[in-house]
Amino acid sequence: MASTNKSLADKTTERIIRYIIDNKLREGAQLPNETTLSSLMGVGRSTLREAIRALVSRNILTVQQGSGIYVCHNTGVSDDPLGFTFIENKEKLVTDLLEFRMMIEPRVAALAASKATPAQAQELLLLANRVAECCEAGKPHAEADALFHAKIAEISENVIVPQLEPLIMHAIDMFIDITHSQLKEETIRTHMAIVNAIQNNDAIGAQDAMTLHLIYNRDRLRRVLKKDPS
Amino acid sequence: MASTNKSLADKTTERIIRYIIDNKLREGAQLPNETTLSSLMGVGRSTLREAIRALVSRNILTVQQGSGIYVCHNTGVSDDPLGFTFIENKEKLVTDLLEFRMMIEPRVAALAASKATPAQAQELLLLANRVAECCEAGKPHAEADALFHAKIAEISENVIVPQLEPLIMHAIDMFIDITHSQLKEETIRTHMAIVNAIQNNDAIGAQDAMTLHLIYNRDRLRRVLKKDPS
Repeated sequence: MASTNKSLADKTTERIIRYIIDNKLREGAQLPNETTLSSLMGVGRSTLREAIRALVSRNILTVQQGSGIYVCHNTGVSDDPLGFTFIENKEKLVTDLLEFRMMIEPRVAALAASKATPAQAQELLLLANRVAECCEAGKPHAEADALFHAKIAEISENVIVPQLEPLIMHAIDMFIDITHSQLKEETIRTHMAIVNAIQNNDAIGAQDAMTLHLIYNRDRLRRVLKKDPS
Repeated sequence: MASTNKSLADKTTERIIRYIIDNKLREGAQLPNETTLSSLMGVGRSTLREAIRALVSRNILTVQQGSGIYVCHNTGVSDDPLGFTFIENKEKLVTDLLEFRMMIEPRVAALAASKATPAQAQELLLLANRVAECCEAGKPHAEADALFHAKIAEISENVIVPQLEPLIMHAIDMFIDITHSQLKEETIRTHMAIVNAIQNNDAIGAQDAMTLHLIYNRDRLRRVLKKDPS
């Protein structure tokens, strides 16, 4: 592809990333405007724009028309970090996503239980209640459900797991889509068991409750996919 | 940012992704040239180039000057899918990466053992031998080590785990960097125990061997980070 200033734009991209890190800019932080940024980076306006476009598509920056350039939420993690768009067999994908969640979430719940403060446990309880309310009101609960699991990841203090938020979101969305999930009693009950164990700093209890929660999900999925004819 | 054809470029980006999926183009497959692609997508050359640049920075396409446009290896997964560049505390990052590997790899090894064909076990043995050879020759072994773990992920048949290849690579690189790892006897021995268990379709044995392998790594890391003064 004919792009005369490709390598300069690439270097500018790297330099802006360095700038974000060195200045400890967090999500939502505003960058200098185009004019200032051009001169800081020592490049012309068109090179700068090419670099910014690359950073936008990598979910590092977001550009608000007329307002400015900001650091993204979940900086550098795209909505589809692991390229699920390119996995064609959706039944296999949803099954394997659940298998993947079973690998990580029970241990994450145990870590969260060993670290949770009373205030964090309270926040988690509110999120569990929100899922239950959505259920009772017959409203979509995918987002509330994802927030519940994301909060547990955050409480665990592991820096990797919260970065998987888009993946968990994807897993929950697909699961609900495929199972046409009416939220079941089990979900509400096992969510609450997870909250209780985390509240009591009971690592083993939290791990077991999360395992049970995901086993119920897997059971439901297997029935829908007719892998288990009961 | 003034970009008059932004939304058209975005739509073209999505349309090219759809084209890749519908035509079942796998990694290394060549796309039509710019002229053909422009007319297929019904857009001008500059919009097409903007879309292609976005796809290049998302690791979906790669452009070989004078040769053509190809689908990337690990399509849609960037070298840093979870934004580790933006995590500043590198000791915490390497520790949490190892914790994360302990969540997934033992179970992945168990899955691999339950599914491995003799041919796959043989390939894995060759990779384990290559790691050992690098060690004996005093050569860097990070890449061989990552290939060994990636092969186990592939054998497991879970579609998510192989997409984490850049993450495992990152974890191994950082680990070697921080521990100044001279590859230890333990690594070679536990790698071999993993191969043997997978060869024998022994899921529990593979899970235990992988767990042991990662526990040795964690122990070494704790000593280096002086969290364990022994």
